[in-house]
Amino acid sequence: MEQLEYQEGRTELATLGKVALIDRLSADFEPKNGTTAKGIGDDCAVLDRDDRQYTLVNTQTLVEGVNFDMMYTPLKHLGYKAVALAISNITAMNGTPCQILVSLAVSNRYSVEALDELYAGVRLCCQRYDIDLVGGETGTSRAGMVITVTAIGTVDKDKIAYRCGARLHDLVCVSGDLGSAYAGLLILEREKVTYQANPNFQPDLDGYDYVLERFLKPEPRTDIVKMLAEKQVVPTSMTDVSKGLADSLLHLCKESHCGCEVYEDRLPIDYQTTRVCSEMSNNMLPISCALNGGEDYELLFTISQKDYEKLKDEQSIHIIGHITEQGSPAVMVTPQNTTITLRAQGWQSDQ
Amino acid sequence: MEQLEYQEGRTELATLGKVALIDRLSADFEPKNGTTAKGIGDDCAVLDRDDRQYTLVNTQTLVEGVNFDMMYTPLKHLGYKAVALAISNITAMNGTPCQILVSLAVSNRYSVEALDELYAGVRLCCQRYDIDLVGGETGTSRAGMVITVTAIGTVDKDKIAYRCGARLHDLVCVSGDLGSAYAGLLILEREKVTYQANPNFQPDLDGYDYVLERFLKPEPRTDIVKMLAEKQVVPTSMTDVSKGLADSLLHLCKESHCGCEVYEDRLPIDYQTTRVCSEMSNNMLPISCALNGGEDYELLFTISQKDYEKLKDEQSIHIIGHITEQGSPAVMVTPQNTTITLRAQGWQSDQ
Repeated sequence: MEQLEYQEGRTELATLGKVALIDRLSADFEPKNGTTAKGIGDDCAVLDRDDRQYTLVNTQTLVEGVNFDMMYTPLKHLGYKAVALAISNITAMNGTPCQILVSLAVSNRYSVEALDELYAGVRLCCQRYDIDLVGGETGTSRAGMVITVTAIGTVDKDKIAYRCGARLHDLVCVSGDLGSAYAGLLILEREKVTYQANPNFQPDLDGYDYVLERFLKPEPRTDIVKMLAEKQVVPTSMTDVSKGLADSLLHLCKESHCGCEVYEDRLPIDYQTTRVCSEMSNNMLPISCALNGGEDYELLFTISQKDYEKLKDEQSIHIIGHITEQGSPAVMVTPQNTTITLRAQGWQSDQ
Repeated sequence: MEQLEYQEGRTELATLGKVALIDRLSADFEPKNGTTAKGIGDDCAVLDRDDRQYTLVNTQTLVEGVNFDMMYTPLKHLGYKAVALAISNITAMNGTPCQILVSLAVSNRYSVEALDELYAGVRLCCQRYDIDLVGGETGTSRAGMVITVTAIGTVDKDKIAYRCGARLHDLVCVSGDLGSAYAGLLILEREKVTYQANPNFQPDLDGYDYVLERFLKPEPRTDIVKMLAEKQVVPTSMTDVSKGLADSLLHLCKESHCGCEVYEDRLPIDYQTTRVCSEMSNNMLPISCALNGGEDYELLFTISQKDYEKLKDEQSIHIIGHITEQGSPAVMVTPQNTTITLRAQGWQSDQ
């Protein structure tokens, strides 16, 4: 019978970063199909569609107890969020999402009515973003729920934005605000701890609507992709902010073989995020939520300086810094002019 | 805090079949994109690619303890099988698989070396079938392993075979042999039980190579798709045999609004399947393995009678019956001329 674990020469998953792991596992795969334009290493796989367009494909798995906590995640929100995350990866390459497939594994703890709720959220997100649900399956899990959403989209060949296209002196831009989803998570975790200590406790979530919605029901920024097309700006590089700004910046710089400098006082942080941080007993800093919190699903992209005039008055985006030369680190400059080197997160950073 | 279960009006998942569940969940989704040619209800989603071709997409999740048992599933075989299953769904619409994305959730019980083994199997299957690994991610699970493979392929518009195209008097064909994968599972389960009773026991798997390989390392029938193209036969309908012949026939008849008659003595059953059944203490019948065993990943399809001459001498397929009129049931006729109505399996049929 097969051994479950390799005892000799065993390397724990935690010793490798997620990116290093995927790099290791996907080494020695040689593309053989002419239709494969770009494989692993960006937000989506890029496939040749026709002379004018690429097809973008992405798959994303959410695991109960790791990526979501049923204690405070309404099923309808979960369905919405699972779709939003997958289509965010299409927008992250300046593309337009078109279809999704949903693959679900659930234990018998869930009822048919519970799955109805989940799919009500899937349907709502599909309606809002004009997405067709075209496939998927429902199977059994031994414990909890696992949702995998595959998203398919298209992008004009002359508009695709890879992570690898940033060039020296390009401007670094980000949409919306950062850290508010993590602030929402902090509130939910605080109420959960109190509730677990005293089940008669009524959680008080009033006044936290914005940060809670940011965490529970993120909106993919298809509007930013449309705005860029209208203003005839093609980003030189792009990704989405799913694991915090630092992680996204580091990916972008690594793939583009460059460094970057972003300015702390330019980072868009909502006052409600700041308020939540001030309430936390552990002196959480709003800037930490923005850099390392994650789950914002905003777009991070770079533009050529020549496009500055086209975007400088655009309210939905913020210019937070610029690209530096190859060999330079990715850094944040504080208002006191201190330079902080941004660090990557490891395997543990799922939530 | 959110309630985990709905106590009132709770409908257990087991009371609905898998197909009824997916039908219920995916109701009220209206396709909005012109590129969606066909959504849920066949082996793949069908998307418009260009004037000549469709893109086929399918996603398939395997859950440890439900779809595979680590006790007797070597990781390399598991990786191979996960890919084989996904690309089998592309061949099931007479298509050619081109790319896959692999999404993996694993607990820290698995080492990096274990995942290397898994991916060695993924790589082997990709090499064998000229598939490009173009994406995916690796995340954390709380317990065990969950693998989702998304497969992408193409099919000429004039060659696509849906489940719904069978017509009265069409011939029913199946590739390879049926029930041998299930025979392999029976052997592995028998050895597992003996091993669990006595851990010093050395499992004896000699002489069962064929049935074990059929279960542990199924081969998608891309060769049948090529053969049909060479012989210029376009099946009128098609699906793969993943949950037993009965399940596949019932799907095909339901979607095509027809019945069928297949002949027990025409069903291809390998002598090794028969041998395994004769060894089992519960008087397992080979025909039951073929009808309800599952995991064969052979192709079931119908052809017009006019194409009979082109295929009658083809060794790799068997003509097992014919399509009957709308309103007739799907039946099997025994050598004694008894007619047995085929029955569907329920939610529990994951393994």
